[in-house]
Amino acid sequence: MVSQTAEWVAVDWGTSNFRAWVFGKGDQLIKLVTSDKGMGSLEPSEFEPALLEAISPFLGDDKTPVICCGMVGAKQGWQEAPYAQAPCQPASVETALRIAAKDARLDVYVLPGVSQDSPADVMRGEETQIAGFLAENPRFDGVLCLPGTHTKWVQISAGEIVSFRTFMTGEMFALMSKQSVLRHSVQTDDWDDIAFENAISDGLSKPQMLAARLFGLRAEGLLKDLRPASAKARLSGLLIGLELAGTRAYWLGQNIAIIGAPNLSALYASALRLQDAPAELASGDRMTLSGLRSAYNQLIGNSNDS
Amino acid sequence: MVSQTAEWVAVDWGTSNFRAWVFGKGDQLIKLVTSDKGMGSLEPSEFEPALLEAISPFLGDDKTPVICCGMVGAKQGWQEAPYAQAPCQPASVETALRIAAKDARLDVYVLPGVSQDSPADVMRGEETQIAGFLAENPRFDGVLCLPGTHTKWVQISAGEIVSFRTFMTGEMFALMSKQSVLRHSVQTDDWDDIAFENAISDGLSKPQMLAARLFGLRAEGLLKDLRPASAKARLSGLLIGLELAGTRAYWLGQNIAIIGAPNLSALYASALRLQDAPAELASGDRMTLSGLRSAYNQLIGNSNDS
Repeated sequence: MVSQTAEWVAVDWGTSNFRAWVFGKGDQLIKLVTSDKGMGSLEPSEFEPALLEAISPFLGDDKTPVICCGMVGAKQGWQEAPYAQAPCQPASVETALRIAAKDARLDVYVLPGVSQDSPADVMRGEETQIAGFLAENPRFDGVLCLPGTHTKWVQISAGEIVSFRTFMTGEMFALMSKQSVLRHSVQTDDWDDIAFENAISDGLSKPQMLAARLFGLRAEGLLKDLRPASAKARLSGLLIGLELAGTRAYWLGQNIAIIGAPNLSALYASALRLQDAPAELASGDRMTLSGLRSAYNQLIGNSNDS
Repeated sequence: MVSQTAEWVAVDWGTSNFRAWVFGKGDQLIKLVTSDKGMGSLEPSEFEPALLEAISPFLGDDKTPVICCGMVGAKQGWQEAPYAQAPCQPASVETALRIAAKDARLDVYVLPGVSQDSPADVMRGEETQIAGFLAENPRFDGVLCLPGTHTKWVQISAGEIVSFRTFMTGEMFALMSKQSVLRHSVQTDDWDDIAFENAISDGLSKPQMLAARLFGLRAEGLLKDLRPASAKARLSGLLIGLELAGTRAYWLGQNIAIIGAPNLSALYASALRLQDAPAELASGDRMTLSGLRSAYNQLIGNSNDS
């Protein structure tokens, strides 16, 4: 059996994960290759071998465009792709870093992250999801929320990232639920919707009580047999509520879309709905791929022009 | 050489550390024994052997009173010493749990922690420091701040704990500075006073921006070469400022004393001073010992009465 040949490859290369979508003729997906060879585990010289290991069976004799996004372009990555500075268009192939790979079959582009001068902020990876969302919704004007380890709130107007702000909410939740004294109180896969909703309201209305309300989960566990499902939902709600208090100017009365993993996006959507702020949802994975494809289409368009 | 005989022993037995002060005639300190045999590393049956290992050289033929405080009295400790419920007097020997040790030379008392029904809260160890402070300052009326992993704010009136509230500030600082993405930005032993003061003000005035300001430390590190000393001081200031925003009702216009480790207490004092709220300082170690001695004196008084 002759293996199919790639027309182009889309790569989402994060800190801890690698994913490559190999596309053949007619934009047919030939293969999705995933591995744990994330940026964090590689030396600069190890990126090209890792990429080849994943996609070489599909490379033809001609150069194959490989469009990458994520931490692969960070200072500790393959090569640093300097940030575009907001306000700016998100990830485009014109601003991409082209890497001179040793293997002549590779034509590698790394989409740049976006930075902001004041307040100082950075993103690397989310700009590609934003580009994907804007490719699918070219007239969108409003606010994008990209929940995750470092949740981004992004003001979009006329196809540009006008401003953005990052909240460490997801990382705080992970540390609190896995490393803190609260880890004993929140060990469950269950969930308590009412506890979440009350905690959103508490977090939003009294952000200054965060550190006390967190310890309260431990104390109620000791004194009142607080259920783990309630404690976990409250921990999440307090932190997301705190974030909603800090992003009020972003979401109040705005057109909102949430781009992310389905479960987390649904939590943010329900929290916003409680504030009478409805939001549409878009899959983070799909937007990543859509953003990479958008860059590839730009490249094809460009080369067709030349 | 004949070893000296203990009149009584004061024991501060926490989650990760054990400290025993062995006192002889005339309240003379014979020996301070410290070890890492904290509650967290011991099964219930291992507490008595651990205690004997530390103090048996000093035990005479008669029963020796051993007054303990801390997590030794928790559910996972030697034996559970049920909480006294606020409002109440702090740690007294009358409410202590007396443990029937196997070794007849031991007469062990464990001072109880304090709980609060609403909002649910607990302390175990701090009540002994409070008892020590009140033994030295019997007329104190106002607010005690006991900074640490789980900082306590305690309203004191007429020698009683009227109410209290715990803030996870210290644990959040430890997790953020050692386990989060910020660990790269704050690795230093240096300190920036001005950055701390500005962060106190930021944390106090905009608590809802906490998660964004934390990520800002990372972003400023990447984009503006923020110095680690400044990042670390800002991290500390943002978290303590958040706590001061949540405890305003406790400290505003109140008589304040801070009981704790010297460096951390000094940080809290300087943060409060910026809010025109001066505080006196008391050593945490000294207050622990003073609280244990106060319980011993009650015991001696009681047995002299009987």
